[in-house]
Amino acid sequence: MSLTDEQRAEIEAQRAETAPTRRVTVPALEEILYRAIPVLDHGFIRVVDYMGDDGAVVQAARVSYGRGTRRVSEDAGLIRYLMRHRHTTPFEMCEIKYHVKLPIFVARQWIRHRTANVNEYSARYSILDREFYIPAPEHLAAQSAVNRQGRGTVLEGEEAAQVLDLLRTDAAQCHDHYVAMLNEGTDGTPADPARLGLARELARMNLTLNTYTQWYWKTDLHNLLHFLSLRADAHAQYEIRVYAEAMLSTLEAWVPTTFAAFRDYRLGAVSFSAAMLRVLRRMLAGEAVTQEGSGLSKREFAEMMEVLAREG
Amino acid sequence: MSLTDEQRAEIEAQRAETAPTRRVTVPALEEILYRAIPVLDHGFIRVVDYMGDDGAVVQAARVSYGRGTRRVSEDAGLIRYLMRHRHTTPFEMCEIKYHVKLPIFVARQWIRHRTANVNEYSARYSILDREFYIPAPEHLAAQSAVNRQGRGTVLEGEEAAQVLDLLRTDAAQCHDHYVAMLNEGTDGTPADPARLGLARELARMNLTLNTYTQWYWKTDLHNLLHFLSLRADAHAQYEIRVYAEAMLSTLEAWVPTTFAAFRDYRLGAVSFSAAMLRVLRRMLAGEAVTQEGSGLSKREFAEMMEVLAREG
Amino acid sequence: MSLTDEQRAEIEAQRAETAPTRRVTVPALEEILYRAIPVLDHGFIRVVDYMGDDGAVVQAARVSYGRGTRRVSEDAGLIRYLMRHRHTTPFEMCEIKYHVKLPIFVARQWIRHRTANVNEYSARYSILDREFYIPAPEHLAAQSAVNRQGRGTVLEGEEAAQVLDLLRTDAAQCHDHYVAMLNEGTDGTPADPARLGLARELARMNLTLNTYTQWYWKTDLHNLLHFLSLRADAHAQYEIRVYAEAMLSTLEAWVPTTFAAFRDYRLGAVSFSAAMLRVLRRMLAGEAVTQEGSGLSKREFAEMMEVLAREG
Amino acid sequence: MSLTDEQRAEIEAQRAETAPTRRVTVPALEEILYRAIPVLDHGFIRVVDYMGDDGAVVQAARVSYGRGTRRVSEDAGLIRYLMRHRHTTPFEMCEIKYHVKLPIFVARQWIRHRTANVNEYSARYSILDREFYIPAPEHLAAQSAVNRQGRGTVLEGEEAAQVLDLLRTDAAQCHDHYVAMLNEGTDGTPADPARLGLARELARMNLTLNTYTQWYWKTDLHNLLHFLSLRADAHAQYEIRVYAEAMLSTLEAWVPTTFAAFRDYRLGAVSFSAAMLRVLRRMLAGEAVTQEGSGLSKREFAEMMEVLAREG
Repeated sequence: MSLTDEQRAEIEAQRAETAPTRRVTVPALEEILYRAIPVLDHGFIRVVDYMGDDGAVVQAARVSYGRGTRRVSEDAGLIRYLMRHRHTTPFEMCEIKYHVKLPIFVARQWIRHRTANVNEYSARYSILDREFYIPAPEHLAAQSAVNRQGRGTVLEGEEAAQVLDLLRTDAAQCHDHYVAMLNEGTDGTPADPARLGLARELARMNLTLNTYTQWYWKTDLHNLLHFLSLRADAHAQYEIRVYAEAMLSTLEAWVPTTFAAFRDYRLGAVSFSAAMLRVLRRMLAGEAVTQEGSGLSKREFAEMMEVLAREG
Repeated sequence: MSLTDEQRAEIEAQRAETAPTRRVTVPALEEILYRAIPVLDHGFIRVVDYMGDDGAVVQAARVSYGRGTRRVSEDAGLIRYLMRHRHTTPFEMCEIKYHVKLPIFVARQWIRHRTANVNEYSARYSILDREFYIPAPEHLAAQSAVNRQGRGTVLEGEEAAQVLDLLRTDAAQCHDHYVAMLNEGTDGTPADPARLGLARELARMNLTLNTYTQWYWKTDLHNLLHFLSLRADAHAQYEIRVYAEAMLSTLEAWVPTTFAAFRDYRLGAVSFSAAMLRVLRRMLAGEAVTQEGSGLSKREFAEMMEVLAREG
Repeated sequence: MSLTDEQRAEIEAQRAETAPTRRVTVPALEEILYRAIPVLDHGFIRVVDYMGDDGAVVQAARVSYGRGTRRVSEDAGLIRYLMRHRHTTPFEMCEIKYHVKLPIFVARQWIRHRTANVNEYSARYSILDREFYIPAPEHLAAQSAVNRQGRGTVLEGEEAAQVLDLLRTDAAQCHDHYVAMLNEGTDGTPADPARLGLARELARMNLTLNTYTQWYWKTDLHNLLHFLSLRADAHAQYEIRVYAEAMLSTLEAWVPTTFAAFRDYRLGAVSFSAAMLRVLRRMLAGEAVTQEGSGLSKREFAEMMEVLAREG
Repeated sequence: MSLTDEQRAEIEAQRAETAPTRRVTVPALEEILYRAIPVLDHGFIRVVDYMGDDGAVVQAARVSYGRGTRRVSEDAGLIRYLMRHRHTTPFEMCEIKYHVKLPIFVARQWIRHRTANVNEYSARYSILDREFYIPAPEHLAAQSAVNRQGRGTVLEGEEAAQVLDLLRTDAAQCHDHYVAMLNEGTDGTPADPARLGLARELARMNLTLNTYTQWYWKTDLHNLLHFLSLRADAHAQYEIRVYAEAMLSTLEAWVPTTFAAFRDYRLGAVSFSAAMLRVLRRMLAGEAVTQEGSGLSKREFAEMMEVLAREG
């Protein structure tokens, strides 16, 4: 992660300010508020604001006038009930805002989640820093032989070295030329007085997709859970999954009861189709069901057996 | 407004609790937090949570690391610029949550605004109180003769008395029968042991549309402004406009700079079509343009002249 | 269902018109296009337009230039894969539009699905017909003793008769008074010249919630499936479930391959939580797991056993 | 534009197929259906499906049973009324689907419009072609001196030549290295058997932002108008504006009445703030208002005078 000293100072200055509020507060989240959690080589996420807590979910489900006087165990039971039966609207009553620094190709996946508010750093307006994502050697994976959108074994030796060299060299050269085409001096005058400098909105097209960008991203708890269920999943690309995993830690600090229900009923849950349920009933009746006799495709049968054999 | 003593006590108990926070706070909004602002005869709105302030709009537009060190005047200038040029995403970075009590026919208009989060009191699950909206005599208007969806003069004398009587009597009778069909005693046993009692989800269909319901309603600042620009407008039905007007007062307490820009560039603004602009240019050149020679319909021409003649 | 002769004639006139198109067509859906499918006592749904078919889902998933030349079996395999892995965006590429007539209290549940386009008949602008939903005797259910938002046994004898009488009488009386307050004659003049007539936007508040309204409702296939998975579910209120069931028949005519995958992977599927999966693995290993030793609540354990015992 | 012969053949094959439909058809749009309209050096848009026409807007506004029997002039009047008063929901009843080929940096602006359905060509799954956007010499603009996110004069001579050379060379080199890292042979075997080949989802990060991608993009008429009002505007970046302009031509073919109203009330319209209206009234009264005495900022005053002086 590469925060400048000035940025660190701004963050700590903001952390130092506190004020009294009548709103619901979450001390565990206040504890990490504004602080950057490193992700990848230069990225981060940091929580910059939040609204509500576990109690706000309960309060909305009951449309109550105050904080209510129910016991914690009743509230947890209600939250688990809402999660299990996909009563999603009470979870929309909490809101969280992140500041995220991430490579552009990750941002392009992320932005597909439409139910969120986003303000991205504008490369029409400002100049992007010379920072690119270069995978760590252990993440430099070959194309998967079995999954057209997955990774296989890790590259090694000379091939790995060459790939890393190409990624580094191309990104750096493209950024150097980007800066050269812009022709902007540090004091607002042209670097080379003989040239006008290309418009920022055009010059940016020379950057590679591993260049870092950043944005403010705000969403409600329900949509955050949906995002995390897809992006913290094993099928998600590693480079976005690590952001989701960092966000899971903030989720646990913010709404621990919701987090526990989410882990049990969503992250750790498996959906059995009508056909799988039929197979399951036969197995429970003692039958040794084979793929051929299952009515399932090879792939589905294998996925089902894998789930049933998994250590849990 | 009809809050019970218990509800008032719950609200005041919640107001009495304060905690320190590192988040942005808005003292003027904290001042009114949780308190019910009366609307219509039994309704209210109250702010129950919020996220962000004017500064959060600026911060998102700049994707900055801290609160920033710009002067207040620069921030106001940026907010006015964003409002004028309809750069709407920075306004999405603030969020507010209301608790609203409102007649069902008003709720049916309100819910058409889809970009919000809602939890409504469930009449499948609970019993609705015996509270109906009955217009004050000065709002008991006749159908407009010129606008198929507007109001004309106020009803008077016997007609007014009859209408008020019908509204009161029918709503009360329908609610009485609703309670009778439910057959629920105060202690969870049937009121009449000889009857089972109709399911709540069915009995509610006997209620009239002026029965009060309530909900938690949460939205971002951009969508709130859009809601208010439509519902605080003179063409909005009076019964929803009064809610919008009460919300305008909370908007001013929350984000005064945004409120001022909104008032100037949205509430008080008028859009001139291409054809109207052509007429305007001729008028500014000294020509006395008539409707016949304007290229505008009678209605549009009249609307335009009304705007130009208005005291502002 | 109560279509007037004029409405039937308009529908048949529109059905009689055909034109050639280069767009994808679905003969089985054309067959029922515009025709009203009766629901409840006076309601209906009818498909009034559509875009795309099963092939459009495949085409979007592949971002292809033409209809493609793959075999039907490959297309079906891809659709099942997309459904199983919740790759939802290709299903958004098909769109359907319904005209629906439904009681207001059903409309209030339905409108909670925000990702759709709606135009409702305006009672600010027009007068609502004298049509109310009165449950058939076999649907006149008591409140459930075990589920706070469910139904129990059917009311019988005198209680049933009284309830039906109250529902009919109150709805009729409220509508009669609504018409009386409006005071509109058939020829645009007042019914009673001595009265002005109450504005339509006010008079409507006297109607009961079982009064029928109607709307045009348009959504994409993904959001339609989401709507149907919730509203065709056994936990949905009967009065909205019958609309969902009628829509399922139109779904099957429109996109048969998607419909089959939806039935298997969504309607007929069950989600097992992490804790349930642990119980399942013990059962498959031959252990007789009791609720006490399961780690599940009584309710969850019972739900799980019910699923495993179900005939499928 | 660079369609392959195979792609052209697929498009023409699809155009050659027609079938009868009971749905509304628009012959002028059928005429151009599926055909690619060239945009920029390698991009295009093509309409691949549509639902509804001008009449569908009217039909939804009236919630009618058939096509209706009103005269064309009444329908046009209603559409103009809806547009003028921002009654937007009837316009949501029409839907259109485009296939678009566009540079990634344009796609990143475009995707910010969230109320649309998108399926993009996946570079996790497939390999992107060797096609980059290189601006035509007349669009190679310098940074604007007055607008931080705008363009100024066109680059000339050696600077222009150097910039074009850098853009071409860097994009080509990055794509060459992308292909090399992938190491995929034409027959599914590795190009170089000694190397594994980098996973597609990683290799893509080496591409520059002017690389072309493509997607299916579907939206309703209301949201299309909103998109076009922002992206066909003079403040939009040239590279997205040309797409919007090509789409305007398809809009005119599809819904000519809506298009005319849109041009008059939205594209050609100007919003005057409360403060501008005050200035306008003084000018109409014959006063020579200066910026200093106007109450407007220099920028706003200049913008207002420019509008009033414009040829219309």
